[in-house]
Amino acid sequence: VSLRSAIVTVGEELLSGATVDSNAAWLGRALSHLGIPVRQRFTVGDRDDRIEAAVLEALELAELVVVTGGLGPTEDDRTRPAVARALGRPLDRDPALVEALEARFRGRGHATLPPANLRQADVPRGGHALPNPRGTAPGLWIPAEGGRVVVLLPGVPREMRALFDAVEHRVREQFAERLEPVHSQTLHTTGIPESVLAPRIEEALGGLETRRGVEVAYLPELTGVDLRLSVAERDGAGAEALAEALRLVEPVIRPYRFEAPETGDLVEAVARQLGERGLRLATAESCTGGGVSARLTARPGASAWFLGGVVAYDNAVKTEVLGVDPMVLERHGAVSEPVACQMAEGVLRQTGADCAISITGIAGPGGAVEGKPVGTVWWAVAFRELGTDVAQTGVRVRAASAVFPGDREAVRIRAGQAALRDLHLQLQERA
Amino acid sequence: VSLRSAIVTVGEELLSGATVDSNAAWLGRALSHLGIPVRQRFTVGDRDDRIEAAVLEALELAELVVVTGGLGPTEDDRTRPAVARALGRPLDRDPALVEALEARFRGRGHATLPPANLRQADVPRGGHALPNPRGTAPGLWIPAEGGRVVVLLPGVPREMRALFDAVEHRVREQFAERLEPVHSQTLHTTGIPESVLAPRIEEALGGLETRRGVEVAYLPELTGVDLRLSVAERDGAGAEALAEALRLVEPVIRPYRFEAPETGDLVEAVARQLGERGLRLATAESCTGGGVSARLTARPGASAWFLGGVVAYDNAVKTEVLGVDPMVLERHGAVSEPVACQMAEGVLRQTGADCAISITGIAGPGGAVEGKPVGTVWWAVAFRELGTDVAQTGVRVRAASAVFPGDREAVRIRAGQAALRDLHLQLQERA
Repeated sequence: VSLRSAIVTVGEELLSGATVDSNAAWLGRALSHLGIPVRQRFTVGDRDDRIEAAVLEALELAELVVVTGGLGPTEDDRTRPAVARALGRPLDRDPALVEALEARFRGRGHATLPPANLRQADVPRGGHALPNPRGTAPGLWIPAEGGRVVVLLPGVPREMRALFDAVEHRVREQFAERLEPVHSQTLHTTGIPESVLAPRIEEALGGLETRRGVEVAYLPELTGVDLRLSVAERDGAGAEALAEALRLVEPVIRPYRFEAPETGDLVEAVARQLGERGLRLATAESCTGGGVSARLTARPGASAWFLGGVVAYDNAVKTEVLGVDPMVLERHGAVSEPVACQMAEGVLRQTGADCAISITGIAGPGGAVEGKPVGTVWWAVAFRELGTDVAQTGVRVRAASAVFPGDREAVRIRAGQAALRDLHLQLQERA
Repeated sequence: VSLRSAIVTVGEELLSGATVDSNAAWLGRALSHLGIPVRQRFTVGDRDDRIEAAVLEALELAELVVVTGGLGPTEDDRTRPAVARALGRPLDRDPALVEALEARFRGRGHATLPPANLRQADVPRGGHALPNPRGTAPGLWIPAEGGRVVVLLPGVPREMRALFDAVEHRVREQFAERLEPVHSQTLHTTGIPESVLAPRIEEALGGLETRRGVEVAYLPELTGVDLRLSVAERDGAGAEALAEALRLVEPVIRPYRFEAPETGDLVEAVARQLGERGLRLATAESCTGGGVSARLTARPGASAWFLGGVVAYDNAVKTEVLGVDPMVLERHGAVSEPVACQMAEGVLRQTGADCAISITGIAGPGGAVEGKPVGTVWWAVAFRELGTDVAQTGVRVRAASAVFPGDREAVRIRAGQAALRDLHLQLQERA
C-alpha cells in the first residue's frame, strides 16, 4: 500500500473565509511531489477539541499528518496542547528553544522575551524542533505510533514554506523504503468540452487504466480541459505505462493540444510561437473589451511580441480608429464576418503588426438581435503576408464564429480563447 | 445555541493542490454573513467512502452542510451517490431535470444529450433541485434528520456563486426563527491602506465597539479596504447603535469612500456618475494592457458610457495611434507626466469621448530605469471642456504618479484603481 498524507489547517480566519487557504494547496503539491499524496484535509478553528479530533482522525487515514497554524504566541494558538493531548503526551519546555527565542528577541533589540512567547518553546514529549529561519515558531516533528508522524508547521505561508525543506529531508529518511515515485504528465487542451473528450480518451486507452494502473483526471475550465495522466510506480514499469498512455491519447488530443508547462495558459504557447519567429501581434476587441490584451500583457516580457491594440467597443471607434467601412457595418451589423475581418486588418495596418486578432460579439445579457442570440461571436486572425508592405494589399485574414453558452463573463472568456486558439493553429500551420 | 455550518469540498485536484480551494473561502464569508458561521471544513477526493464519511461527520457538527464539487457528468463525479448513501436514500432520476438538460443541449446545437449527462438529473430522494443558470449541474437541497439540511453545489466557482442566492433564500425560510438579526453595513474605501485606516476608525469610534457591541471588520483587497460595521440585535437598540457608528466613521472615510452596493467595485460608482450625466469615457493604457477597459466592460450596459480605447503597449502605438509627440517620449520617457497627459488627450480626440483616463508605468519584473523603479506609474484624467470642440483646444488634463508595491499583477491592479479613483473624484468635483 502506498503512503498517504493528511493535512489539518488551523485558524478561524480560514473557516470565516477572511483568508484563503493557500498553504493547503501548496502542501498538496509538495506532498504529491514527494510521493505521499494527500488523502484528506481538515480545516478547524482555534479550539482544542476540534484540533484534537481532526488530528486523531487524520492519523487513521494517513502515515504523515501535517498540521499548519495555531503555533503563535497568543492564547488563541491551540495547536501544541491539542496535538499533545491527541497523542497522549505531556508538553515539555525545551531549554534550547527558550534560549534560541531569547537570542532572537535580543537580536531584534528587545531586552527580554515576552512571557507569552515562552509557549513557543513547548514540545510534545518525543518531538523534535525544526528551526524556523523566518519567524519565532519552530516547526515540530513528532513520531507517533505505528511508524506514523505528525508534523506541526506555522501558518504564515513564507515560514511554512521555508520549513518544508527540513520536513522533506526527514520524510525521505523516515519513509525511504516506502516512497513510490509517481509518473505523471498534464496535457492542456482547448476547443473540446470535457463531455466529448472523456469518452474519446477512454476509447483510446482501451482499458489501459485498469490493465496498467493509469489514472486519468480531467480538470475543466472555461478556457479548456487539462488532462492529467498518472501511474504509481510498482514494478519498474510505471514510466513505460505512462508512455504507452501518452501514445494512445496523442491522436485524440492533437488538434486541441497546446504546450504551456509554466502556466497552463494558451497565451504561453502563443507567446513562444511569436517570440521564436520574431512576429508581433496586435488586437482589435469589441465584446471582450480589452480582456484578451490584458491577458496577453499579464505575461512578463510581452513587449517582445505584443504591440498593443484597439478596444473598439462603440461602432464609431470601429469606423474612425480601425477604418471599418460604415456601409459594411450598417449592412452586416457589428457582429459579422466582414466586420471581424476589417477590424483585424485595420489594427494590423494601424500598428504595423505582423499578425492581429479581432473579436466582435454579443456578450449579453442584452444586445441579442434576430438571428444573433446572446453568445454570438465572430473573430478573425490576420497575417501580413511575408515580404509585402502592410500599407498595400498583403494581408490575409480568416474569420470564424460560434454561439458560446454562459453568462457575460463566460462568453467573453470563451470568445478570447477561441481567437487565441485560431491564432495558435494558424501559427502552427505556417511554421 | 446558534446555528453552525460545515463545508465539504470534493475533488482530487483540491487535495493535490492543482486547484486552490477558493470556493471554501467564499462560502465561509457567505455563510458567516448569513449568520451561520462555519465550524469545520473537510476536503476529500473523488471517492464515495471519503465523501460519505465526511458528510456524516459534518452532520454531527452542524445544522447546515454544504458540499461542493463532484456533480459533473463523468464517472469521477461521486458526490450524488455518496451523499445519497450517507443519508440512506435512493437516487431518483428527475424527469423535469432530464427535460431541462435536453433543452440546454438542444439550445447549444447538439442533437442529443450525452448519456453521461443523465447522471446530472439524479436526486437523492426527498431532495429539491436548485436551477443552475450557468451550467448543467443543478444544485440540490436535501432535508435530513433533525431539521438538518445538506446542500450540494457544483465545484465550478462561478456556478456555485450563482446558485448561492437560491440557497440563501431557502436557508432564511428553513432557519428563520433561529437566525439572529444582525444590523450591518459595508462601506467601500479606496486609496487608504488598512494600517492607516484602522487606527483612525478606532479613534473615531472611541470605544463604541465595547459600549454598544459594534463589530468592525476590515476586508482588504488590492483595490481598497471594505469596512464592515455590524451589531447583533439584542435589546432593540441594534439599529440605533449601527447608525451612531456610521455617523462617527463618516468623516474619516469621506475622501476615500465610494458607493457600489451591487458589486463593491469602484467601476459601479464611476458608471453611475457617467451614466447620470450622459458622459462617455475612453481609455489609453500602456502597462495595464487593456485591464482597465476589460474591467469597465465587464459591467453589463457599459456601452452606454464607454466608447473604447487604445492599448498603447509599444511606443510606436503611443505615437502613431495616440499622437504622442516622439520628442516628448524621447526626452521624458514613456513613464512620465507629459506622456500620460498626451495619451489621455490623444484618445479623447481619437474617439470623441467626453473624458478619458490614461496609464503608463513599469509593472515589472523588468523595465526599471534610473529614478523609476518597478512600480512607478503615471496616470492622467482628461475632460473635454463643456461647450468646446474637441478637435480644437478645449481639453483639461491632470496627471498624478505613485510607486506601487507588489508584483506585476498587483502593480497593474493598483495602477488601474488609482486612475479610476481620480476619475471618480474629478467627476464628484464637477458634479
